[in-house]
Parts: sequence; C-alpha cells; structure tokens
Amino acid sequence: MNIGFIGLGIMGRPMAGHLKAAGHHLALVKHRSDLPAELVDGAAVCATAREVAEASEVIITMVPDTPDVERVLFGADGVAEGLSAGKLLIDMSSIDPITTRVFAARLAELGADYVDAPVSGGEVGAKNAALTIMCGGTEDAFARALPLLEAMGKNITHVGGVGDGQVAKVANQIIVALNIEAVSEALVFAAKAGADPARVREALLGGFASSRVLEVHAERMIKRTFDPGFRIELHQKDLNLALGSARALGLSLPNTASTQQLFSACVAQGGAGWDHSGLVKAIETMANFHLGE
Amino acid sequence: MNIGFIGLGIMGRPMAGHLKAAGHHLALVKHRSDLPAELVDGAAVCATAREVAEASEVIITMVPDTPDVERVLFGADGVAEGLSAGKLLIDMSSIDPITTRVFAARLAELGADYVDAPVSGGEVGAKNAALTIMCGGTEDAFARALPLLEAMGKNITHVGGVGDGQVAKVANQIIVALNIEAVSEALVFAAKAGADPARVREALLGGFASSRVLEVHAERMIKRTFDPGFRIELHQKDLNLALGSARALGLSLPNTASTQQLFSACVAQGGAGWDHSGLVKAIETMANFHLGE
Repeated sequence: MNIGFIGLGIMGRPMAGHLKAAGHHLALVKHRSDLPAELVDGAAVCATAREVAEASEVIITMVPDTPDVERVLFGADGVAEGLSAGKLLIDMSSIDPITTRVFAARLAELGADYVDAPVSGGEVGAKNAALTIMCGGTEDAFARALPLLEAMGKNITHVGGVGDGQVAKVANQIIVALNIEAVSEALVFAAKAGADPARVREALLGGFASSRVLEVHAERMIKRTFDPGFRIELHQKDLNLALGSARALGLSLPNTASTQQLFSACVAQGGAGWDHSGLVKAIETMANFHLGE
Repeated sequence: MNIGFIGLGIMGRPMAGHLKAAGHHLALVKHRSDLPAELVDGAAVCATAREVAEASEVIITMVPDTPDVERVLFGADGVAEGLSAGKLLIDMSSIDPITTRVFAARLAELGADYVDAPVSGGEVGAKNAALTIMCGGTEDAFARALPLLEAMGKNITHVGGVGDGQVAKVANQIIVALNIEAVSEALVFAAKAGADPARVREALLGGFASSRVLEVHAERMIKRTFDPGFRIELHQKDLNLALGSARALGLSLPNTASTQQLFSACVAQGGAGWDHSGLVKAIETMANFHLGE
C-alpha cells in the first residue's frame, strides 16, 4: 500500500521503518536535513505534505503537539489540500482529544476517514514494534487502520469513536503521573520515618498498593537512575493537555494540577530531561531530604 | 502458648479465633457485653488488661487508634503493669509509627519485647487467615512473633526495626488512596470527554497505568458498587496518621493532603461508610457529572 508518513522523529522513524519492512511503499516529505537513509530507498520523496497526501492511500502523522498536527493537516500545502474521498488519516501523535474531533470533522467534509491512534511504550516500544496503541474512529476506519497498526504495536485497543483514543491516552498519562507522585510521597515518608524504602517497596508489592509504577518507577527512585525512560518535559506536555481539556470540559483535576506543579519544580532544578520518576526529587527537595546518595 | 488478646472487634475476633484453633490458650478482658462464645470456651477471662498481661507470655493488641493502644498499654490496670522481663507485646493495630517507637522504648525498660505488626486485607483477610502483615522489631522478637502471625496471615514481611511495620502500613495507605484518586480523575475525565470509561479502563490495563486499584477499585466506580470494602472514614484515619507524622518529620505530602480533603467531601455527602472507591464521587460532584446512574 502507498502510505504517507509525516513526522520522522525518535518515534516516527522506527515506526515508518516497520511499515516499509512489512512491504509498504512510503511517501515522505523532503526535510532540510537528510532523510534517514534506511527509509529513503524506494520511497517517494515529496516537496510538501499535500504531495504526500496525493501520493498515498493512508497518511500517518506522528508529530509533537496539537498545533503541529493542525499545521501539517491544514497549513499551506498541507495534507487536507491533497486529500480526496476514501483516503484515511491516522494521527498517532498525542494531542488534544476535543481538537481531534474538530480535525476529523473537517477531513470528513472532504470524504476522508480519521483514526486517532496515540501510542505508549516510548522509543523502545517503537523500535521493537511493541507499542500500546489506543484508537478512536468508526468501526470501518479502525478495521482499515488495524493491519498497519499491527506492524508497529502489540496491544491495540479500539476505545470508541473519533477522539476516544486521545482521551484514553490522556487518562493513561494522568494515572501514570499521579501513581509516580503517590509512590514518591510514600517512599520519602518511609525513608524520613527511618525505614528502608527498598524493604517498604517489597512489603507493598503484591498488596493493594501494587502497580507497574511501584514495580518500575519506585525501583528507579531507590536506585537513583533517572535517565529516560520518559522525559519529564514530555509528561508535562501530556498533563497540560489533560488540564486544558479539563478546563474546556468544566472539570476539576486537583491532583493532576498539583503534580504538574511538582514537574515544574523538577524543571526548575534542571530536570526537564530526567525520567519522570525523577518527580521524587521535588518531594525530596520540599523535605530537605534524599532517599539515596 | 498463653496468649493475651485485647481488641475483639471485626478484625480481632476472627484473628483470635485462628490462634485458638492453632491450639493456643487465650486470655481475654471481660467486656461490658458478652465475649464471643467461640472464644470464651477454655479462655482465661480477666478483669483488666494488667491481668491479661500477667497471665500471658505474648500479648496481642488490635484496637482502633494510637490513643487506644496507649490506654491499653499504659492506662490504669494496663498491660504495662502486668508485664515482666521476657514477655512480648505484638501490636497489630494501625497506629502512629513515631509513637510506636516511644511505646516500645517504655516496654523495653520493663524488659519486654515489642513487635509492631499492622495488617491489610480487611475483614475478609482476617476471617480467611490471609492478612498481609508488615512487621517492625528486632530479629529475635520477629522470629518469636512469626509462628503466631502465620496463624493469622499469609504475606508477612519483616520491614525493619520497631515502628517500621507501621511506616510501611502508612506508606501503603498513602499509595492506595492516591491511586484511587488518580483513577477517579482519569475515569471522570474520560467519561466527560465522551469516552466509555469501561473501555478506557480495559485499554489501560496491562500498560504503565495498570495497578491493583485500576483492576479492583476502578471496576467498583464503573459498576457503582460502593459497599465496603474499606470504609472512607477508616482511610481518613490512616491519612491523618500520614499527615500527622509528616508534620512531625518536617515533610510535605501535597497529594495526600488534597486527597484527604476529597475524602472529607465524601463524608460531607454522607459517605463515611462508603467503600474508599467512592472517592470518585467527590471528583464527580466538582464536575457536576456522574460516571454512571
């Protein structure tokens, strides 16, 4: 199949590679810098996103944020100008759910289908074609997207209509951030109260406090390994989406808001690039105390 | 072995029953109301906690809160008056860790050992002898307590020195409360943004957002089953311990504090007796929106 792929960053590059390896023909936008050699071979290199859309049956976008998707789709020489009835846009970026529905409605006017399919699993998941993918769209559009998504991910869920994939991703990021914050408070409390945080973590695994975050991120906090993983500045972007959507929806998210402030405290200490488990340092700083060396 | 058991409430009664079934001789304090018939048969019924301590090698306390333990141990005709060198006190109540160390030091002056061994697992765990038990004390004291604890629980951890069992229990209750709050924010967000919260929960299980709380409590929120379980008023007591100890230790627990306020909002709605997953109703009320009927 002819597939346009827009957004060849840390995530997009290996994802596009899996599609090529599965036998698809890629259409790419010519960059100021050189396109990755492993992708260019056999690909259609286009001057604009419009030309990519003209050359492709399915167009996939994987860009940083909501305004980036808007520019790629609706900017000058954007995807929308090259779309025609029957084409499918799959947006795998993590962006605002409400705006996603607006984008999908605009593409529907052109007769094009839309699936939002944000991912989790990070660079490692992208490289190993093991991403978790949360999808929104009609049954037909999802069925059409699924074989392509299966080349890039493993745990692929059709959550609901357009936008619901982005809703699930935001919900995921709220829970992960707040669970990291919970473990941070609990371990700093335990250590400052004189217990060994590693023993406390072990005592709690298997009970009602157990979580993937208690398994994975608590261990990073105790071992002081804060190389990403998933960077604090990216989790801030995701909580910003949550808080912005919440404001638009008339919804109060008190602990999401306070956790975002704690991420900001980490950034103030130079931690934008720390793994998100580095949130523990904000709790430690307020206590003038550290779990480890 | 002669075992004194003080505190025959919902938890203590079946726990004492397991010790009797294991062949031990119980010493109990005479109550204003009748003692449970299944425990009285063959037991020494004493007029005071002092007499229970005189009659027993090991004394177990299972009472509601820190002042209750203080009264039982150090009040008039309390346990301390009946203790002598070589006896062991096992406090299975969930109380303040710092005060626990003070209690242990006072009993050490009498030559008595102290193990703090708070439990999780609730009434069902107590009845099935399947409690999780988090222990603090010396190696020797823990080794002496262990065979008795094994009659009442399954997942028994020696966390560290005296008080560390209570520290682990507080850490556990912080994480459980904050994970419940996290899932509450995420599911209310998802539903208000138009997605099906049950589908979102399914999409998230297995990823980094997964936890026992996402498995168990999120399902209660979606199915609107708020019978305890574990009552909000009890979780409030535990967060009160966390916040009181944190103040004493010079430690800031921002999300524990805000979550305690949300529990208070539930109590204001008549929810003291709801399962702690009913916390979701505080988030719903602020959003003027409900996940379910």
